[in-house]
Amino acid sequence: MQIDHVAIVVRDLEAALRVYVDTLGFEQVYREVVADQGIEAVGLRAGDSLIELLRPLSEDSPVARYRGDAESKLHHTAYRVDDLEAKLAELKAAGVRLIDETPRNGAHGNRIAFLHPKSTGGSLIELCQPTVS
Amino acid sequence: MQIDHVAIVVRDLEAALRVYVDTLGFEQVYREVVADQGIEAVGLRAGDSLIELLRPLSEDSPVARYRGDAESKLHHTAYRVDDLEAKLAELKAAGVRLIDETPRNGAHGNRIAFLHPKSTGGSLIELCQPTVS
Repeated sequence: MQIDHVAIVVRDLEAALRVYVDTLGFEQVYREVVADQGIEAVGLRAGDSLIELLRPLSEDSPVARYRGDAESKLHHTAYRVDDLEAKLAELKAAGVRLIDETPRNGAHGNRIAFLHPKSTGGSLIELCQPTVS
Repeated sequence: MQIDHVAIVVRDLEAALRVYVDTLGFEQVYREVVADQGIEAVGLRAGDSLIELLRPLSEDSPVARYRGDAESKLHHTAYRVDDLEAKLAELKAAGVRLIDETPRNGAHGNRIAFLHPKSTGGSLIELCQPTVS
C-alpha cells in the first residue's frame, strides 16, 4: 500500500499554509470543512501522496482532543530533496529556522536535516537526500 | 517535494513489525541501529515512500522524549487501497480491531475507515479509497 496522506493537526491554519505553500512550495489541492469530523482540511500535493493539514473547528473536536498513545507516536515527516545544501540555504534565506545548519547522516544512507518546529507550524519536518535507492 | 518517509516511534518493535509486515503486508527495506540518534530504525516500502518505525534504544533517547508541540501534531497516516470493504473484511478476519466496520466519508471525496490503535502498535492508521483523482 502506498501513503495516501499524512494528517497533521494545526491550530493556526493560515500560518501553516504560509509555511507549507509559500515557503516550502507545496501546491494546494483542496480545502474543505468536514463538519461531522469537526475539521477544516487542506490537502497539499506531495508527489503521489498528500499532506493534509487539519484545523479543529472547536476545542472538543475529536482531532483537537487526540493526544496519541504513550506506546507509539508519529515523530516526523520527511520530504525528499535532490540537493540538501541548496534547499537549506534557500530556506535559511527565507527566514526558516534550522535545527541542522549542515546535513548529517540518517538511517539508510540518507543525508538529513531537521527544520525547527517553530518555523513549521509546530510539527517536526526533516529534509532528506537519499544516497542509495 | 514528495514524502520520503513518515517516522513512527514504537515501543515494541517486534509487535509493530507483526502488524505492519505480517498483517498489513508491507515489505521491509532496511533495519539498522543509528547509535548517535539513539534508535533502531526499520524502513518499510509504501509505494515510492517509506514508513520508518523507530525504536528508542533508551528512555533518554531524544526520540523517546519527543512529545511534539501542543500547537501541532501528527494525527494519522492514511494508506490507499482499491477496495476498502474487501480490505476491512480481510483485516477483520486477521484479528485486527476496526474503529469503522463500514466505510464513511472523509475529506476530498475519500471513503475512509480507521483501524484501532490497539491493533496497530499504537498509532492511528486510516485506510482510504479515493473516489476522485
